Amino acid sequence: MLAIDPATSGGPELLVPVTRDVPVPGENEVLIRVAAAGVNRPDLLQRQGRYPPPPGAPAILGLELAGTIVAAGPRMGGGLIGERVCALVAGGAYAEYAVAPVGQCLPVTDGLAMIEAAALPETLFTVWVNLFERAYAGDGESVLVHGGTSGIGTMAIALGRLFNLRVIVTCGTDEKCERALALGAAHAINYNTTDFVDAVRAATGGRGVDIVLDMIGGDYLSRNLAVLAEDGRHVSIAVQRGATAELPILEVMRRRLTLSGSTLRARANEFKALVRDELMRTVWPHVAAGRLRPVIDRVLPLAEAPAAHARLESGEHVGKVVLRIGEDADG
Amino acid sequence: MLAIDPATSGGPELLVPVTRDVPVPGENEVLIRVAAAGVNRPDLLQRQGRYPPPPGAPAILGLELAGTIVAAGPRMGGGLIGERVCALVAGGAYAEYAVAPVGQCLPVTDGLAMIEAAALPETLFTVWVNLFERAYAGDGESVLVHGGTSGIGTMAIALGRLFNLRVIVTCGTDEKCERALALGAAHAINYNTTDFVDAVRAATGGRGVDIVLDMIGGDYLSRNLAVLAEDGRHVSIAVQRGATAELPILEVMRRRLTLSGSTLRARANEFKALVRDELMRTVWPHVAAGRLRPVIDRVLPLAEAPAAHARLESGEHVGKVVLRIGEDADG
Repeated sequence: MLAIDPATSGGPELLVPVTRDVPVPGENEVLIRVAAAGVNRPDLLQRQGRYPPPPGAPAILGLELAGTIVAAGPRMGGGLIGERVCALVAGGAYAEYAVAPVGQCLPVTDGLAMIEAAALPETLFTVWVNLFERAYAGDGESVLVHGGTSGIGTMAIALGRLFNLRVIVTCGTDEKCERALALGAAHAINYNTTDFVDAVRAATGGRGVDIVLDMIGGDYLSRNLAVLAEDGRHVSIAVQRGATAELPILEVMRRRLTLSGSTLRARANEFKALVRDELMRTVWPHVAAGRLRPVIDRVLPLAEAPAAHARLESGEHVGKVVLRIGEDADG
Repeated sequence: MLAIDPATSGGPELLVPVTRDVPVPGENEVLIRVAAAGVNRPDLLQRQGRYPPPPGAPAILGLELAGTIVAAGPRMGGGLIGERVCALVAGGAYAEYAVAPVGQCLPVTDGLAMIEAAALPETLFTVWVNLFERAYAGDGESVLVHGGTSGIGTMAIALGRLFNLRVIVTCGTDEKCERALALGAAHAINYNTTDFVDAVRAATGGRGVDIVLDMIGGDYLSRNLAVLAEDGRHVSIAVQRGATAELPILEVMRRRLTLSGSTLRARANEFKALVRDELMRTVWPHVAAGRLRPVIDRVLPLAEAPAAHARLESGEHVGKVVLRIGEDADG
């Protein structure tokens, strides 16, 4: 099969499809003929050699995919064969075939294209776990997300719309702010022309937000804390501007703030299966009813994976970049 | 009445009893003839001018007391008069009379001396709220507390013994470590002779602790995080070594740590009353049965308040320093 599995670390030009053996599904795994795979920022880091796959994960890039189950692991029978699914995987999605733990698969419901389905798992699992479990977002609460038109940002806006959260975002241009507002953001701040601390305070009548879902870190952290309301929660899911930050402990105490964070990829399959089960109950009915669709920035064939990474690196994308891999990608 | 209410900020020598009007209880308040008052570290900061009373609180020092109710506020009737209570107050305890919100009073049960009762509220409310509510300590979990022989430390050990927590403490001398172990600490580390990070790891088989209840801050924070187990919680209740710290965000994400903290004094009376109600259900039966008593370092008359503060400032105390104020202090 063809797969993106560069032998060295470096730039997007390394992402040339090569031939690899079709993987063999193990216990509780299925083999999926991949129709499409989503591109995520961690893929860029992995390509650069800054985010190695966790133990046991394939070296082939890609954390999410959609496709058709064509085989199953030992003692699983053939009942799943032919099912159209999307899946969260710890690697291996940029390929014609990939294995996924069956507990991490979600059905591709009628009306959902494979390309759309492939763009859902990574941001959906990530935003769900961090916003609703770690930050226990409650009905009517407000959330600040930097990068409102990123994959994570657009998913946060979409989930906020479905679950009655007031999502305030920052973006790098006025055009992106417009896009974020059109998607359902309550407020969008151009961080290149406006101090977001002042703007968030103004947008919340001085109260601040209940939650910050943060991918930035570094010097943003203390500014994020400055716009948290009393009992506010700060959840870190990436550290694009720095893996350390100055923490104002006394402010944490005075306003009873909570800081937390998580990574998804290295978690146990059992945990991911629990999240999948929760998403099936809470979010998937909205997918089935057509109320939740990913925002797709562009779709590129597997052979153009370098352009896909370059697009994400440019920061000019709005929503998800997806790789078209199988002939059934649009179905 | 006599009260400690220095006109300026400075050293312990300022703590000379002066004459003040007996306060008048307002709505939902009682007037207490004070038998004894506990001395706490925030009192030292207030005396130094570094911790002003919150709005509406008396300038007279003192955050906890025990005594007898002698009057009640408007429309409260006389039913409470004569009751022996201890209370958490936002100020005013270093005096012959003090007012307390009735919702912050706990009964002085048979067998509990006023001096003992006066030494309970501040550390009990503080440790309870932060250990069990903010850090949601669960059965069998491990907790690290620096200053194992402080008022907070001895209360944490006592509550750990009652609620099946494994409390690991650090102390500044081997003698204090011995005292902490005798009180029920699972492990005591002399921080002047041993690196507590190594020692906590060794004491937990490399796993780390579930919770750090921290009064130190500053450069201790990152070391505290280094000894937290996966999903560990760090709760700040004071910042003796610094109000800011470097936060390793990526470590927070990788081990899914949670940092939080709180202050007690400025909270609404409604909150404190909820905590009182919870303590009545959970802890006070242990007090009534004689299973929970404060560790008393020494008892000094009100006129020796300077020596009481000096004692706490020396760091040589083990447990609580209490001021004897009324003739019934020992009863």
